[in-house]
Amino acid sequence: MTVTEGAPRLRHKVTVIGSGNWGTTVAKLVAENTAGHPDLFEEDVQMWVYEEKVTIAPDSKHYDPAVGDSPQNLTAVINKYHENVKYLPGIALPRNVVANPSLVDAVKDSSVLIFNLPHEFIGNICRQIKDHILPYARGISCIKGVTVSEDNIELICEYISETLGIYCGALSGANIASEIANEQWCETTIAYNTPAGDLHNSSSSSNGKTASNGDGLIEFTDSRGRVSKTKLTPMPATYPTLDHDELHKLFARPYFTVSMVSDVVGVSLGGALKNIVALACGFVEGHGWNMTAKTAVMRRGMLEMIAFAREFYPETIQEKTFWEESAGWGDMIVSCTSARNWRYSKMAVERGVTVEEIEKTELNGQKLQGISTTREVASFLKAKGVQDKYPLFMLVEGILDANVDVEDIPALIRK
Amino acid sequence: MTVTEGAPRLRHKVTVIGSGNWGTTVAKLVAENTAGHPDLFEEDVQMWVYEEKVTIAPDSKHYDPAVGDSPQNLTAVINKYHENVKYLPGIALPRNVVANPSLVDAVKDSSVLIFNLPHEFIGNICRQIKDHILPYARGISCIKGVTVSEDNIELICEYISETLGIYCGALSGANIASEIANEQWCETTIAYNTPAGDLHNSSSSSNGKTASNGDGLIEFTDSRGRVSKTKLTPMPATYPTLDHDELHKLFARPYFTVSMVSDVVGVSLGGALKNIVALACGFVEGHGWNMTAKTAVMRRGMLEMIAFAREFYPETIQEKTFWEESAGWGDMIVSCTSARNWRYSKMAVERGVTVEEIEKTELNGQKLQGISTTREVASFLKAKGVQDKYPLFMLVEGILDANVDVEDIPALIRK
Repeated sequence: MTVTEGAPRLRHKVTVIGSGNWGTTVAKLVAENTAGHPDLFEEDVQMWVYEEKVTIAPDSKHYDPAVGDSPQNLTAVINKYHENVKYLPGIALPRNVVANPSLVDAVKDSSVLIFNLPHEFIGNICRQIKDHILPYARGISCIKGVTVSEDNIELICEYISETLGIYCGALSGANIASEIANEQWCETTIAYNTPAGDLHNSSSSSNGKTASNGDGLIEFTDSRGRVSKTKLTPMPATYPTLDHDELHKLFARPYFTVSMVSDVVGVSLGGALKNIVALACGFVEGHGWNMTAKTAVMRRGMLEMIAFAREFYPETIQEKTFWEESAGWGDMIVSCTSARNWRYSKMAVERGVTVEEIEKTELNGQKLQGISTTREVASFLKAKGVQDKYPLFMLVEGILDANVDVEDIPALIRK
Repeated sequence: MTVTEGAPRLRHKVTVIGSGNWGTTVAKLVAENTAGHPDLFEEDVQMWVYEEKVTIAPDSKHYDPAVGDSPQNLTAVINKYHENVKYLPGIALPRNVVANPSLVDAVKDSSVLIFNLPHEFIGNICRQIKDHILPYARGISCIKGVTVSEDNIELICEYISETLGIYCGALSGANIASEIANEQWCETTIAYNTPAGDLHNSSSSSNGKTASNGDGLIEFTDSRGRVSKTKLTPMPATYPTLDHDELHKLFARPYFTVSMVSDVVGVSLGGALKNIVALACGFVEGHGWNMTAKTAVMRRGMLEMIAFAREFYPETIQEKTFWEESAGWGDMIVSCTSARNWRYSKMAVERGVTVEEIEKTELNGQKLQGISTTREVASFLKAKGVQDKYPLFMLVEGILDANVDVEDIPALIRK
């Protein structure tokens, strides 16, 4: 690759919005990669941190007698010790992860925005950054979930896209943050449908619809295969092209294998709907059934996920994302055997209490994503009058509401 | 359904060939169904038992002081106490399971033969029964595995078909015999491509190629989509049609959900090749990796299974069997998390010994199916010169032969 003579060659500046255990983990791996690809990326990675006070315990290696147990700003501690002592303790961060308490400052001049924070905060975050981002910034959403109102469903990455007027892809897979932070090998899937106007000097595949000009903005097709209402500012040619190859370089690590696809629907729905199935698997296992029964539930869950995609995204569904990708079967398996929704729904049945009760006693008020997803999806299916096609999704709602017995699961989902 | 006036209406007689824990479990569930469908099946189910002597312990409920600890025939004990005290102790069998020590007598007059015994015995069994079965008998193979010679691969159900001159389908799924024996719910898949000449009065789908007459025999297409060398004697019209509905009635129980398909290739290959992947998962987990890494291995394994089917059965492959059926992803998950090949390959890595060493010390000389399948498949792929397309299958052979380090798995299968 040669740089055009005389043209100043910009590099992509990367910001991670969010600094929980998953956000900090992604900041870590992305920063390892920006350092390794100085032709493409600025080395420093901004990480927006919701500022809070932390106290370092005397037995910590970061304890400073001069400070004692005075509360310190979390961002200052992260930048001094290169460790997120609150949300990812014990993991050394690269020195080029820069914690920033100002959301607006963190996103300034960034051409790559990585969204990694709890689902419920995304609306507020988008409102705050809307007028402060580069018009041609591009996003990757690591947020699992969908936004469902009674008769509408929206992918998180599309919500971001429409709210900010930028293109946004999605990352999802069979991932557990603490394991990746410890560099234990796993895989993920990134869906990114590169806007045609962004491809100055690349021959890669992309969002097929050509840019329309005039106002200089480009059109792109949305997740339902229609021309999006949102028009995009093309990425200037002074930047390296941002396509599958470059995103792969930004996210893939020896311990983190990345598969690039263009199917944002499959990747997003997989990440959201599997949590309903994970709850069902916890119920089944808590009741005393074994792996064979749980596997039967996973299989039915996968069939309902695909039926859902086929019904509501008929123009764009790519079934093989569910079958083949880490964001499909991979994430389903991990979520139903090792992750939170499964663990706590199993515990609820074992203890004979509701899952909401477990949220209170075990999760300190934190919410299980699967519960709200189940209720929203069930309400959406009922509004559309198609609930009978989704017996597994509906019985999870029934169990949450104590209208269905766990004992009855096989009979309810049997052919 | 009306019986033709005057025509004697026969019913299907069912024989289970094999009486290990899986064979006895299948005999149990099939016998529950023959009793429930007297219009289709004779009530008694023959179960061929390799005769051996057993001694009933004094603390057993079946201990008879008059017999004491004198050795008794296993068949006599099964028929007296309705329990296979040796291979499925503690499980009450229906009284219409009839243990029979004579293979030839057990298959006599049976129109449905269920093969359920270790892979390595099938050749000898077929030779013994060849001249004693009904010419229009039909088979279902519950044997997982394939027969591979250096440059040929054959499905077990096709081996049975060709050797006996009868049509034979396959049953495979995410099944653990002891759980099904205890009536814990799970699912399975049966592949059966009903010969057209068998369909006297049914409108179901079937093996599309029409019967050729003249010699009264019927042709059918084999697993590679070619007209089979084997010609079949059609099922006489005096029997009830034996098609998907009837087989479903024979195998499905409230605790055993059956999905009927016509893809014998997918069901057979799924059951065989997943054992290679299960070994790989045991290696990975024994090495200390977690569920996310194991899931990545399962995903790669599934992709190689499908690539294998696509390469060697291009005319007949139905990928969705792998993606959607219990015999596909379902069996993969259970085999890689709960079954023998996984358990003992994990143990081998944890103890730093070979899997063959574990067979000696833990399995009392019993063989792990996955080891021979791995060696046969690897040798077959090398003979065909396509081993590079199957890095996961090949690395399992490499680990068995101590030519590959478990540590290197991610690097070897990474894109």
